[in-house]
Amino acid sequence: MIKLYYAAHTCALASHIALEEAAAEYATVRISFANEEQRKPEYLAINPKGRVPAMVTEKGILTETPAMLAFIAQSFPQARLAPLDDPFLFAEVQAFNSYLCSTVHVAHAHRMRGHRWVDDPAAITAMQRKVPESVGACFDLIERKMLRGPWVMGDNYTICDPYLFTIAQWMEGDGIDPSRFPKVRDHRNRMSERATVRKAIAEELA
Amino acid sequence: MIKLYYAAHTCALASHIALEEAAAEYATVRISFANEEQRKPEYLAINPKGRVPAMVTEKGILTETPAMLAFIAQSFPQARLAPLDDPFLFAEVQAFNSYLCSTVHVAHAHRMRGHRWVDDPAAITAMQRKVPESVGACFDLIERKMLRGPWVMGDNYTICDPYLFTIAQWMEGDGIDPSRFPKVRDHRNRMSERATVRKAIAEELA
Repeated sequence: MIKLYYAAHTCALASHIALEEAAAEYATVRISFANEEQRKPEYLAINPKGRVPAMVTEKGILTETPAMLAFIAQSFPQARLAPLDDPFLFAEVQAFNSYLCSTVHVAHAHRMRGHRWVDDPAAITAMQRKVPESVGACFDLIERKMLRGPWVMGDNYTICDPYLFTIAQWMEGDGIDPSRFPKVRDHRNRMSERATVRKAIAEELA
Repeated sequence: MIKLYYAAHTCALASHIALEEAAAEYATVRISFANEEQRKPEYLAINPKGRVPAMVTEKGILTETPAMLAFIAQSFPQARLAPLDDPFLFAEVQAFNSYLCSTVHVAHAHRMRGHRWVDDPAAITAMQRKVPESVGACFDLIERKMLRGPWVMGDNYTICDPYLFTIAQWMEGDGIDPSRFPKVRDHRNRMSERATVRKAIAEELA
């Protein structure tokens, strides 16, 4: 059985929702960032990066949201969470998720995790100041060029959808008014109504 | 025929090498960052992100190195550039590439592209100061926990190898002494000897 290590309010929610969508048998393990559990030897033995998510499978441990989402899609093909039979369409899915991971999430991380890239407190504050602009530019691109609707890839729900939903939940915290991006906002609302999404969120906040 | 848009000394080299390894029919188009060609309307029509690489295929345009590398591996299965038949092993490949993309490359980018995340010149300088430490921590993890040897995934050469090679070329520029990481250094040397790698680099520097 798959075991998902997560912390509340993190990108781990994307994989959690995907496991629900796949009707996978899985269990979750909550890691408390407040108690710095992600830096304790027990967790570092699972994920030496000291981050979430991590997923223990019967074959070994996986990290990195885009890789975990693709693994879930490929391991549960009957759930049709990605266009697995067409390398180009699959690459489009992966490109979207890679953008979320390496550009959108990274821009967001400059608000709470600036210490990764700078020591000077004044520079951390300067980073935080630019987050509404840098994250806003990402959502502008997603709104104009990437989100096809009703789902990210168009008519078919894919592993892009829980990932976009997860990151789009952070907009207000990043100082962005969701009404600037009606397609992203509507997608978020559409996702919020899914039973799988409600179940994953309820469990994480329980 | 595939057309790869690249700029010299960027992560586009990874896809360029992979196309060589796949014996794909392809052409390259050089984008000059010095002339800011990546921000001109002609290029933004291809990649609205204004970055490289971008790859025009007969089915459409792809961006994002991890997605492009997986596409190359899946489109040219005879080249055996990824364990395509095993979702777990494929996910391990993807997790490694995702780490390079979203953590290692991002840490590196704080030296030359700090303006993405901050406006204040003093903060940009403060960011640059931490790059040897933040990028060094990434290579330390790769050295200790991720690079199996002789190739990233062990005995089989995969799409992880050109990507690690590409980013490891930036170490000295990031203020890191490669002798601290002998496995990464040896991997870089091993890659440098491949005819495919020499051909791709020669073309980009011609």
